[in-house]
Amino acid sequence: MDHVHEQDGTAPAFIFDLDGTLIDSVYQHVVAWREALEQAGVELSVWKIHRRIGMSGGLMVSALLRELGRELSSDELARVSDLHAEAYERQLASVRALPGASELLRELDTHDVRWAIATSGSERFVRPGLDKLGLGQEPVLITRDQVRYAKPDPDLFLAAGRRLGVPLADAIVVGDSVWDMVAARRAGALAIGLLSGGYGREELLFSGAFRVYEDPQDLLDRLDEVGVRRPPHGESSPLHAAA
Amino acid sequence: MDHVHEQDGTAPAFIFDLDGTLIDSVYQHVVAWREALEQAGVELSVWKIHRRIGMSGGLMVSALLRELGRELSSDELARVSDLHAEAYERQLASVRALPGASELLRELDTHDVRWAIATSGSERFVRPGLDKLGLGQEPVLITRDQVRYAKPDPDLFLAAGRRLGVPLADAIVVGDSVWDMVAARRAGALAIGLLSGGYGREELLFSGAFRVYEDPQDLLDRLDEVGVRRPPHGESSPLHAAA
Repeated sequence: MDHVHEQDGTAPAFIFDLDGTLIDSVYQHVVAWREALEQAGVELSVWKIHRRIGMSGGLMVSALLRELGRELSSDELARVSDLHAEAYERQLASVRALPGASELLRELDTHDVRWAIATSGSERFVRPGLDKLGLGQEPVLITRDQVRYAKPDPDLFLAAGRRLGVPLADAIVVGDSVWDMVAARRAGALAIGLLSGGYGREELLFSGAFRVYEDPQDLLDRLDEVGVRRPPHGESSPLHAAA
Repeated sequence: MDHVHEQDGTAPAFIFDLDGTLIDSVYQHVVAWREALEQAGVELSVWKIHRRIGMSGGLMVSALLRELGRELSSDELARVSDLHAEAYERQLASVRALPGASELLRELDTHDVRWAIATSGSERFVRPGLDKLGLGQEPVLITRDQVRYAKPDPDLFLAAGRRLGVPLADAIVVGDSVWDMVAARRAGALAIGLLSGGYGREELLFSGAFRVYEDPQDLLDRLDEVGVRRPPHGESSPLHAAA
């Protein structure tokens, strides 16, 4: 009997958002979007940009322009997107892994709990962010380029579930934005909110989070609350001992 | 009979916070604090800095260091404060008045409703921010330099009430942070929250706001909800007509 598979059968799989969930990059994205929009002649309050981070970039710009009652041509939209990419690259040096992010992913590996990263960002943004986590090997990774619609559509999480071979009903999505929570519910997954992207606790609860933690470290400290069974500290896992 | 004084007797006075309430400067302060703390060897998640903006600067740094279990000498604290000032100055070009801020203050003047600005910032930060509002004349202004304790202590709002000659029970504090809401309640004033500093609606409600609006424009559009009587659009005020 394969005890590792027994753990797999009872522990949920995890699907993580990247920006604001594993790496501390939301505010840098906010600043970069503000710069890009201003260069395109669009002046918006910064908090309104913050509250749209995590959505698909195209959807975000459309939503922001709607507030101003403006439209941009597809050429202008492409230019805003390029300007954002350039501005974010200038901010990248200040982006760090969030506290506990790498340790949390390693802990899941230790307990043979499957996990993936699913992000509204496209590959070119994701790679340098991923490097900050210092993972030993390539994770299961779903980016914006691999699906038709990014968050708040469920496509990214559905693709992650397929790649993990896990039904979404057995998956927990971990994210920092209301778009993650909405997309998780649409995908049929449970959702955990993290405060590390700058949303308030209640915003996350009211959009569907069943638990809210501060950041990856806080979730790691309380993994037993969300269905990951770990042996008491200092004892080796009976599952692993038997394997 | 002096009809203007009749309006004064029924309309509340307003005490405004500055950063995140009248000017769009919170995210620039966040970025500047992050830079300053990092130069002092303190690495903190950006959202934790965001959630402390609006407090007295000294209290904020102490609260952040407590999370890390560290201490800084008073020399080091002064250096962090200077580094923040320099970093914020570099961000200042991107700071704008929030939508409706100048119009709201002018509208209060039109209706002879008294108002003041009370901010945890010290004079050197406040002046360039104030300039963004393009006020015709010097407002009643209480800065950090004029009181012993900044927010969440009530001193700034109490001083503003004294300068306006208004009991705090007849004043409404308008702010974007939970520190404004707490300080307002401690001062015995009603509090209105604005989302324009990046806090969530419920965070503001749960810390004592009796109403939450998006930004100064949204408050201006709904001034009648908070006790400022205005004649229907297009009619001149009967009070002013009689004066």
